Amino acid sequence: MLEQLKQEVLEANLDLPKYKMVTFTWGNVSGIDRESGLVVIKPSGVPYEELKRDDMVVVDLEGKVVEGNLKPSSDTPTHVVLYKAFPNIGGVVHTHSPWGTTWAQAGRGIPALGTTHADYFYGEIPCTRLMTEAEIKGAYELETGNVIVETFRERGIDPDMVPGVLVNCHAPFTWGKDAHTAVHNAVVLEEVAKIGHRTAHLNPEVQPMDQDLLDRHFLRKHGKNAYYGQGTGSGK
Amino acid sequence: MLEQLKQEVLEANLDLPKYKMVTFTWGNVSGIDRESGLVVIKPSGVPYEELKRDDMVVVDLEGKVVEGNLKPSSDTPTHVVLYKAFPNIGGVVHTHSPWGTTWAQAGRGIPALGTTHADYFYGEIPCTRLMTEAEIKGAYELETGNVIVETFRERGIDPDMVPGVLVNCHAPFTWGKDAHTAVHNAVVLEEVAKIGHRTAHLNPEVQPMDQDLLDRHFLRKHGKNAYYGQGTGSGK
Amino acid sequence: MLEQLKQEVLEANLDLPKYKMVTFTWGNVSGIDRESGLVVIKPSGVPYEELKRDDMVVVDLEGKVVEGNLKPSSDTPTHVVLYKAFPNIGGVVHTHSPWGTTWAQAGRGIPALGTTHADYFYGEIPCTRLMTEAEIKGAYELETGNVIVETFRERGIDPDMVPGVLVNCHAPFTWGKDAHTAVHNAVVLEEVAKIGHRTAHLNPEVQPMDQDLLDRHFLRKHGKNAYYGQGTGSGK
Amino acid sequence: MLEQLKQEVLEANLDLPKYKMVTFTWGNVSGIDRESGLVVIKPSGVPYEELKRDDMVVVDLEGKVVEGNLKPSSDTPTHVVLYKAFPNIGGVVHTHSPWGTTWAQAGRGIPALGTTHADYFYGEIPCTRLMTEAEIKGAYELETGNVIVETFRERGIDPDMVPGVLVNCHAPFTWGKDAHTAVHNAVVLEEVAKIGHRTAHLNPEVQPMDQDLLDRHFLRKHGKNAYYGQGTGSGK
Repeated sequence: MLEQLKQEVLEANLDLPKYKMVTFTWGNVSGIDRESGLVVIKPSGVPYEELKRDDMVVVDLEGKVVEGNLKPSSDTPTHVVLYKAFPNIGGVVHTHSPWGTTWAQAGRGIPALGTTHADYFYGEIPCTRLMTEAEIKGAYELETGNVIVETFRERGIDPDMVPGVLVNCHAPFTWGKDAHTAVHNAVVLEEVAKIGHRTAHLNPEVQPMDQDLLDRHFLRKHGKNAYYGQGTGSGK
Repeated sequence: MLEQLKQEVLEANLDLPKYKMVTFTWGNVSGIDRESGLVVIKPSGVPYEELKRDDMVVVDLEGKVVEGNLKPSSDTPTHVVLYKAFPNIGGVVHTHSPWGTTWAQAGRGIPALGTTHADYFYGEIPCTRLMTEAEIKGAYELETGNVIVETFRERGIDPDMVPGVLVNCHAPFTWGKDAHTAVHNAVVLEEVAKIGHRTAHLNPEVQPMDQDLLDRHFLRKHGKNAYYGQGTGSGK
Repeated sequence: MLEQLKQEVLEANLDLPKYKMVTFTWGNVSGIDRESGLVVIKPSGVPYEELKRDDMVVVDLEGKVVEGNLKPSSDTPTHVVLYKAFPNIGGVVHTHSPWGTTWAQAGRGIPALGTTHADYFYGEIPCTRLMTEAEIKGAYELETGNVIVETFRERGIDPDMVPGVLVNCHAPFTWGKDAHTAVHNAVVLEEVAKIGHRTAHLNPEVQPMDQDLLDRHFLRKHGKNAYYGQGTGSGK
Repeated sequence: MLEQLKQEVLEANLDLPKYKMVTFTWGNVSGIDRESGLVVIKPSGVPYEELKRDDMVVVDLEGKVVEGNLKPSSDTPTHVVLYKAFPNIGGVVHTHSPWGTTWAQAGRGIPALGTTHADYFYGEIPCTRLMTEAEIKGAYELETGNVIVETFRERGIDPDMVPGVLVNCHAPFTWGKDAHTAVHNAVVLEEVAKIGHRTAHLNPEVQPMDQDLLDRHFLRKHGKNAYYGQGTGSGK
């Protein structure tokens, strides 16, 4: 079942080592078939170089395995919470990419400091609050999803305009219209995390960029008036 | 038309991923045929690995497409402004290379701190002022070119001696006698941005280098008394 | 003798350049056969690209060569001390990997700042005290092992839960159930050294992570209740 | 003439891009035949990928070309001064490797902060004084050699024990018993420059390492009591 989605999710997972986003098995990508409500996700702890299409695991929106011989990623409950809360997303990525993880460990969101950021993220990439003892000792991975959703709801951030987050003391999650775009956004997050870190170093008083410039760059790549690219897609 | 220039511009564009100057499609190179006043430029949003000579777009000095099936880079108006204002340049490059972008986001020019810089840039690589709301909301890419030109004119900088700039809150542009040299200068800018960042870290009170040493290194590679290389070119 | 162990130790040594952990010959891996009490270790100063299985040297737990035509690594006495003091370990690695060496030169342990660290090291990776003049001028490499063992004993750290250390002014040692796992832990140490360095930069007041989160992540990969991976091993 | 030395110098030059020590043509290696007093050096400005054995230029100890169709490196007079002043060296390297250049631009020597440094450099790698206007406007490259020699003589540093230097506001030079060893030392200098920079960042009050430890590490690799490696060479 879902052979095409499995292939897409496999390729998106293989893009993680290609873009140097992962050490060992520290990352996973999933994709959803919105019609059936089924999610295809990487199996847990399998090295990328051994990964095959048929290793992909199919789970439902409760996180229960529907098909597959392997255990799904231990982060599956987080992915599922995101698919339920953010109805327009089709793919989710989690990595411990080092620059994004740096900001997460520092407990700071990545401010929008320039047009590289503005081209993909419409404002600061937020960092969640620390999780409580009850959340950590309870259904931890599911609660990780909940704290992400809370961050976007309480701060009034549109997950379609800011397709990523830093989980405090942990690492980034990103998403997008499909698994491929979610990986693309993970790579961008890592790049703006790197440039932002170095900018803060060179100019510790740096302020977020001007709103007009943020608007201009985000909207030239996204939405109905986008004019970047060949006009065939979402500004990717 | 302009088959040789298209080939040169294609190769110069392909040098950007080769020198690790770009993530995804974040960069573009153009070249001009001064006789006809026509500019050859990369199409917008096309991945480098798929780029072919005949994808190159020909535009005139008003930025209007003269030949090509694809849309030119969205930064085309910036390139055109530079060709009109700087009569000796034959190629222009724009990238979001990370170290150069760091200085641009910090709103600081890159000071000449050593001979690596002096070999190619005769003094600080300037950073433009922030653009106004009217410029951002108006013909933004054209105004980006105007603010670059203003920077060189108002500060009395010769664009043939300082072949690059940082657009504030954005990223670098570089140029040169042809597309190949413009890419060369983009790589040098990235390298001196990196070394300069680390130098400022190690010695926060560091001052720009001595003028005599700047003269010696720049002039041993450029101008009629140059003595670096095999004497067949411009000191490249 | 010990042909299989030699092969394992060879492959573990070759993983050091593969993971970019070494410059020139600055690293060595050993493995122990606990039944016979014999240790297989890399020969001293031999480039990785020339290393063959039969170059591996067999030494006993006094560090005396039992088999082999080459001199064993000059760090052999350190390895032997660790095997004698830490009864559950099967492999030891020493490298001068640059981020780990940075913390060692700064004389600081690497605090547990996030889940990447917690997945493998159950708390701070300690840095030893400086060695005394007598230790340095005496049986230096053996004393290096002794100061590591002292660090774990005096601070009450379980070497099975924190499989690595920084030798002050020197560089990291790591270990694991076998040579392969010891290399794996060396790569993780380097990664958390890098991310931790950058985190301390971005947030100089950063505190070690919450104990509950440390517990959760370490124990989801290690021990009898581990649920990461396909359930076939030690959470690797 | 000197075919074997030309081959060695060619290979040593090709090691510079292999070890990622150079951007474009920013580096050169030479070797000397002490019997004839002739120096073989890279030609000026020739890309490494095009370099052939017969492109190597032979000069005498006055820097005059004795054989070769190409112009020698513009840094030839610096190499020649070093060969005349330091009688035991057989090879010289100059690069603008980025970490070494960072310390040179900051005007600071690289302190001995750990055993990685002590294994190859017996104490701080010094940084020269700034050159005077007369030196810069005069025989600049020859004066660069002179200021290096002055640095070692006035500070009482043995160039055989500290085989490298930073030229202030410029970049490193290294040397060794032959061209190959000189490149080896250039790579080590770059590595300790990197680790030292990061160490100074993590612990701004860090002090140079203990003299006993410096002695122990340097002398275990160098001199008549060396015990690192297979005993076939100089501890390389």
